[in-house]
Amino acid sequence: MSRELVHRERVRYAECDPQGVVFNSRYLEYFDIALTELWREAIGPYETVMEELGIDLLVAEATVRYHSPLRFDEVFEIRAALSRLGTTSTTTAIELVRGDEIVAVGELRHVFVTRGGASKTEIPDRARAALASYLRADDPARN
Amino acid sequence: MSRELVHRERVRYAECDPQGVVFNSRYLEYFDIALTELWREAIGPYETVMEELGIDLLVAEATVRYHSPLRFDEVFEIRAALSRLGTTSTTTAIELVRGDEIVAVGELRHVFVTRGGASKTEIPDRARAALASYLRADDPARN
Amino acid sequence: MSRELVHRERVRYAECDPQGVVFNSRYLEYFDIALTELWREAIGPYETVMEELGIDLLVAEATVRYHSPLRFDEVFEIRAALSRLGTTSTTTAIELVRGDEIVAVGELRHVFVTRGGASKTEIPDRARAALASYLRADDPARN
Amino acid sequence: MSRELVHRERVRYAECDPQGVVFNSRYLEYFDIALTELWREAIGPYETVMEELGIDLLVAEATVRYHSPLRFDEVFEIRAALSRLGTTSTTTAIELVRGDEIVAVGELRHVFVTRGGASKTEIPDRARAALASYLRADDPARN
Repeated sequence: MSRELVHRERVRYAECDPQGVVFNSRYLEYFDIALTELWREAIGPYETVMEELGIDLLVAEATVRYHSPLRFDEVFEIRAALSRLGTTSTTTAIELVRGDEIVAVGELRHVFVTRGGASKTEIPDRARAALASYLRADDPARN
Repeated sequence: MSRELVHRERVRYAECDPQGVVFNSRYLEYFDIALTELWREAIGPYETVMEELGIDLLVAEATVRYHSPLRFDEVFEIRAALSRLGTTSTTTAIELVRGDEIVAVGELRHVFVTRGGASKTEIPDRARAALASYLRADDPARN
Repeated sequence: MSRELVHRERVRYAECDPQGVVFNSRYLEYFDIALTELWREAIGPYETVMEELGIDLLVAEATVRYHSPLRFDEVFEIRAALSRLGTTSTTTAIELVRGDEIVAVGELRHVFVTRGGASKTEIPDRARAALASYLRADDPARN
Repeated sequence: MSRELVHRERVRYAECDPQGVVFNSRYLEYFDIALTELWREAIGPYETVMEELGIDLLVAEATVRYHSPLRFDEVFEIRAALSRLGTTSTTTAIELVRGDEIVAVGELRHVFVTRGGASKTEIPDRARAALASYLRADDPARN
């Protein structure tokens, strides 16, 4: 039974564009909140943990599929889990949910690098153990 | 022989994050400039054209692959062409290029809707004709 | 005894710049949240109320004084009250507070205009009555 | 005869809000471009110069007065000069101009600090000499 981050946010006026909806790039700001909050829940405060583990995370790929526009002042949930837990990278699957409607889905692939550098490094054991409980059962790497 | 938009930008300080590089969501702001400038070059000023044609474009999907980080004050080119010209949607392929290095690539899929509404509508002939010259030769829909 | 909005936020990574602190323009995004939340608490949801009253608010002036930088992941309070309640405009005084330290202060002056237009209009009675309780005692207009 | 920076930009769609105009916080992103470009013109590339001089600049205060809204796709000029050149701080006066209309004016006050630190430091001679030519004649500190 895998865990899932659930984090509530509200759309800010500054995030909306002339079409009256959240501008497409802002979804990646929401996705980044998912990363911060998933790490907080799984391991601890992001910066503290990164420093303790001597690592940094670089975003290697981002995908968003926009199903239904989010509008100013709407409350929504950011739900996140891992769809892949590799040797030096993770893929986080994220859903934005308003009421019981999934309004957007996407993925962020992160590569682990040594802190202050850019050399790929293996996911530290402490992080791997903590993240493993968020790995979705249908992940082939888990089987 | 297909055309390609080439547009020059410079990284702003406000676009960079604590890692000293352009924050991942900002790439979608650059991608959106590609759309505006490709339409300007192909057909005319975006807002004027949208109004004349009675249409709006909604982003349905966005993908970014980050190869090498862009940093503050760097000059780069946004290059864009169409990888797909469908009946009611387009896919724009975008590259960010610093010097002769491709630092990021991605795609934006847009759906055409009636202006002020959300009903899918066919790409108007005038837009189709203008966009066709930006369609890449290897697009199967073109053959 | 005047009321004050108190609203809690947490600094997002996307809001921070290469100096590792919240970029200066982002404070105005926080200030805008103050407006939305003060209206919600005083009168009701912003968009609904604006439509019911047939008005829009335009920002005429913004000031921020940065005392101490906010950093990624820090929790802070947005505190807001009115420093002026004029005939066709308001001035909102805003403080950002981390723990018991005021890290930034500023003001937003808004002009009331007719909805969809740009003609100045008097603050509707319903809004004036609701906002009056947030007017600071030291406002000369109140005496 | 004092110099003035003049730098041309075009409003991006991502910068506009549901009122169809540039969101108020985005003006401070434009103001920051003024700083970068004024330093480039006066002394050299911002990052290089900051490193050579062993300094950093912190924004201490920002003011914007919005006269007429900027809209998507409009071209405008950022004009900037110094209204004050103090011992450890500068005030930059900025105007945004569309055609021959000043659409917004404001100021950024910066404090000079030692690089990587937060201790105030005197403006280095090389910077002072270069910036002096951008100081407006009506500045009392200049008389």
